[in-house]
Parts: sequence; C-alpha cells; structure tokens
Amino acid sequence: MTDRTLEELGEFGWIGTLRRRLRAGVGVRVGIGDDAAVVRAGRREILLATDMILEDRHFKRAEAEPEEIGRKALAVNISDMAAMGARPTYAVVALGLPARLRESYLRRVYAGMERLARQTGVSIVGGDTNRSDKLVLSVALMGESYGPRAVTRSGARPGDVIFVTGQLGGSYRSRKHLNFTPRLKEARYLVEKHGVRAMMDLSDGLGSDLRRLCQESGVGARVSASAIPVSEQAKDVREALTDGEDFELLFTLPPRRAARLTLDARARGADWAPFHPVGRIVDRKYGLRLVRSDGSMEPMPGGYDHFGGGS
Amino acid sequence: MTDRTLEELGEFGWIGTLRRRLRAGVGVRVGIGDDAAVVRAGRREILLATDMILEDRHFKRAEAEPEEIGRKALAVNISDMAAMGARPTYAVVALGLPARLRESYLRRVYAGMERLARQTGVSIVGGDTNRSDKLVLSVALMGESYGPRAVTRSGARPGDVIFVTGQLGGSYRSRKHLNFTPRLKEARYLVEKHGVRAMMDLSDGLGSDLRRLCQESGVGARVSASAIPVSEQAKDVREALTDGEDFELLFTLPPRRAARLTLDARARGADWAPFHPVGRIVDRKYGLRLVRSDGSMEPMPGGYDHFGGGS
Repeated sequence: MTDRTLEELGEFGWIGTLRRRLRAGVGVRVGIGDDAAVVRAGRREILLATDMILEDRHFKRAEAEPEEIGRKALAVNISDMAAMGARPTYAVVALGLPARLRESYLRRVYAGMERLARQTGVSIVGGDTNRSDKLVLSVALMGESYGPRAVTRSGARPGDVIFVTGQLGGSYRSRKHLNFTPRLKEARYLVEKHGVRAMMDLSDGLGSDLRRLCQESGVGARVSASAIPVSEQAKDVREALTDGEDFELLFTLPPRRAARLTLDARARGADWAPFHPVGRIVDRKYGLRLVRSDGSMEPMPGGYDHFGGGS
Repeated sequence: MTDRTLEELGEFGWIGTLRRRLRAGVGVRVGIGDDAAVVRAGRREILLATDMILEDRHFKRAEAEPEEIGRKALAVNISDMAAMGARPTYAVVALGLPARLRESYLRRVYAGMERLARQTGVSIVGGDTNRSDKLVLSVALMGESYGPRAVTRSGARPGDVIFVTGQLGGSYRSRKHLNFTPRLKEARYLVEKHGVRAMMDLSDGLGSDLRRLCQESGVGARVSASAIPVSEQAKDVREALTDGEDFELLFTLPPRRAARLTLDARARGADWAPFHPVGRIVDRKYGLRLVRSDGSMEPMPGGYDHFGGGS
C-alpha cells in the first residue's frame, strides 16, 4: 500500500477512501460524499451536516470582523442545507479558543452567528468550548427536507440544463466568502416549484464541484464559457471557475422544467439571486468540457482542494 | 463592561454568558448547558451533542495511538448521550489535519472511531476535512432518548441518593481518558429500570461536575469522602474528585429507588461498571460539602476548567 501524505492524496482522494470504508448504516439514505447526510425517512427527511472553519485557513483574524467569522461558521452549514433542499433547524457549535481571546471578541463572534441564526430560523442549541492555539469553529447543523426527499448530487441526467445562482469568482477579493447569503429561499423555491433534480453548493469552484456532481450522477457535462456569470471581482472565466467559496447553488433541471424556471416571474424578486443556465448534462463518455464561443472545447479547469493537491 | 480574557473568565463563566444570550428556540426542550441538546419531542426525544478534541490539549500524538485518538473523539460524544439517557444514532466528523499526516495514520484514526461506532450502533454519516497545523477532531452526534424524555441535570431533589459508576481519578495516568467505555448499557438500565432522576457524565471531575448538577437542580449536596471509589491510579480522594476525564456517570435517585438499585442483581453483570452511592442531595442552603469520616465538613474541591481559570 502506498502511504501518501494528505497533501499528496488530496481531499477528494481521502473522501473516496472514506466512502469505501464506511458503509451506510440502517436508516441512512445518503452518507459521506454529499453536502449533508440524510439520516431518517418519514414524511420529511432529517439531515445532518458539519463544517469546520479554521483561523489562517478560512479566515485571518486581522482581516475579518469577529461577527463575520461567527456568521461564516454557521453560513457554510446553512449553505449545505440549502443545497440539499432542506430547511436548517438546530445547530451545535464546538469552539477552539485561544486563552488570550477577549470575552468581548467572543461575544461578537456569537453575535454574528446568532443574527444569521435568527434570520434563517436556526436554533443554536448547544456546544463545546476548548482552549486552542488558533481559533477553530466547528458547527453541526440539523435540517428537514422541504419536500418528501432531500436533493442529492446524484440525480442529474443527460439532457438536463445546468444552472448556477448569482455570480462566480473573486469571493476573497469581494469578501463575499465572509458575507455571502446562503441561498435558502432560492433552494426552497427550486424544490417546491420546479422539482430540481440534482443540487449542491459551490464551495470549491464550479470547475471541481461540477466534476463531483457529474461523478455522483454518472454523467458528463458541457459548460459554455460565455454563459458563466463572472463576478466583477473575478478577472476572467478561469477565476470564476476555480476561485472557490462562491456558496452559490449548482443544480440541474430537465429541459421543460428549465424553460419553465426561466419564464417564472417569481424567480425574479429583487433580493433573489438570479438563475443562470450555464450548460447541459451529457452522457458520461463525453466527459466534462468547457466550450468556448468559437466552438472549441477544453477540459474543465479544476478547483480548490483543501489539502493543496491537484484535482 | 469588564472585558476579561477567556482564561480569566473560565469556561463556566462563558457558558453562563452564552445561556443568557441564546434563548431556546421553538421545539427546544434543553438548550445550552447540559450534556446534549434535546431538540424535538415525540414518542422519543431527539438529541444533538458535539465535542471537539485537540492535539496537545486532549491528547499528544506522541503518547496516543491514532486508533485511540479517533476512538476518543467519538467516545466523549457517546458518553454525553449515555448521560442524557439516550441511544446514540448518527455522527458527523469534522477534521483539521496537518498536511504532512500520512494516509495510513488517518486510516488508523478512523479505524478506532469505526470500531467504537460498530460496537455502539452509531453510523458515521458525513464529515468535513480541512488542513490545520494541529490535529483537530470535532464530532457531532445525534441520539434518541431511551425513555419518552431525555434525562437532564436539573431533576435532582433533596433526599436523593447520589451515585457514580466505576472508579474516579488517575485517568491520564491509566490512559483511561483514551480508552474509557461510555456507560451506555448502564445508562439505559438506569433509565428503563430505575427511573433515574438527574444524570450527567463526569468529564471535569466529580467536584466541579456535581457543582453543575446542583446548580441546575437548585439543590445542595453532601458527599462522603470515604464513599468515593478512588481508582488505583489516583493518589487520594482529592485527585479522584479533581482529575477529570473519568467519563463515568453521575446520577441521583430518590431513596426507595436507590435501595432497589443497590439490591437489583442485574446491575452486577461482570462487564458492568459498579454503582457507588457517594452522598445525598440536600437543600440548596447547605451548599456543596465533602464530609470526612470524622464528621468534619469542607467545601468540595473544584475541578478542571477548560480555560485554566479557577472554578
């Protein structure tokens, strides 16, 4: 057995290893590998997600307000729930805290978290605090599916139209990576009104996240470079595809439903993120390709890997 | 407002602040301040707990096998569920991992966690991995109450007999802090057969944990020094009360039920932790006292505080 470092292996490599090791238990519909686990079936499904953010990896204390850090720790989890087509419900918060941190600082971290919790109907119900050299925030969030079933990454089929919400790229430059709005109302609308087929949130960049969605669904995709909604803060399409931390939704709909979505006026509320069609799902044998406006095709640029390995 | 560092404030001070700040939401029966949150009522209650363990705080990589570290990260959460009278069900695992960690090391961390998961009926359903300078493991665990209601810390009443399971103290010396057995079957038995009134697990030492139970229940307690089951690895009663990381159960029963427990043979299976009566719950006005064998009383020694402040 080769024994690579995690840097060499890359995060996706490790997730693959994990999935082979951990068999889903009784009552588990979706285990490791999606935005959240789906753990109980009933009239609604119950979901469980967790995300950890670490000082000097996901934020720098000198560059972010404490409210922003607290907010982000919860927001990334809420974004996971949105991506699964689920309403977030209860959160627990485990913290690693430097001993010299001020109480006022920690109060501000919580204030940011609580404000978002109130806005999104989440109750922060418990937690754990520990001393740590660096600030670590690990939130676990429960949720309940809007529909009878949560939406996974594995439902995309050839012919589906691929959509993203909002603008992509430049998230660090614009501070959107701290202040993004989890796309809860858009997700609910997509689930309840349009029967979205596959969905995930964009955390590592469309390039690598769409690759994951395609792998899970057993399909390929063609993305039109000119259709990518490049944010003002991103330099070009490549950055829009690879910067990461967009926290927008990526989803697919069969063609008729896609047309209906595009026509539906309710999708165009002033405070709603716009829905942009960016490509089509194709048979797996065609792979994942970026189509330039001259019709030439190239492999999709990769994305961000948490261990710094290529993907 | 004074702005203390967390070291000055102490963990309990901070938990008090948090509880005043965060109001319990709709459907939340028990929020911050118990071993787990109780978030839904039905035929059974659903619980959610989280605990983070950090390298060089809760373990040293040079002194613990990777299997032990993984096992402990899950075990502390299972112990919280046992303490609430709940069966653990689904876990998510957020990890902070040094980039130079070997894949084989991480496999062993998971092997320790999975083994305990299988033994206790837990499904590990998801997680999150990030790069970090030091190894951080944050587990969140769902559970379901054995009885119609989870058992909290607030149910103790004057006259109740106070019990602990197993032996106390010396947990670091004996490596019990890594290899302890969460008291699940004992907890289930106490809930289903004996109607235990208040319960928590001993993580910071009986001295400080009993103080918390008394505060939550609005009572006082007298503990008999000679009744404390001092482990072989603890030097004396003081260490047994203050070492921390025992992960035994602390619980109370009214006198008749206490007598019944003591007589009940089923409690004495060879692989069961013994139940030791150690004192009585008294009116709050009598405070929390340790009674020596000569009848003299002294204040209960404190316990371990996660930020190093006195308690």
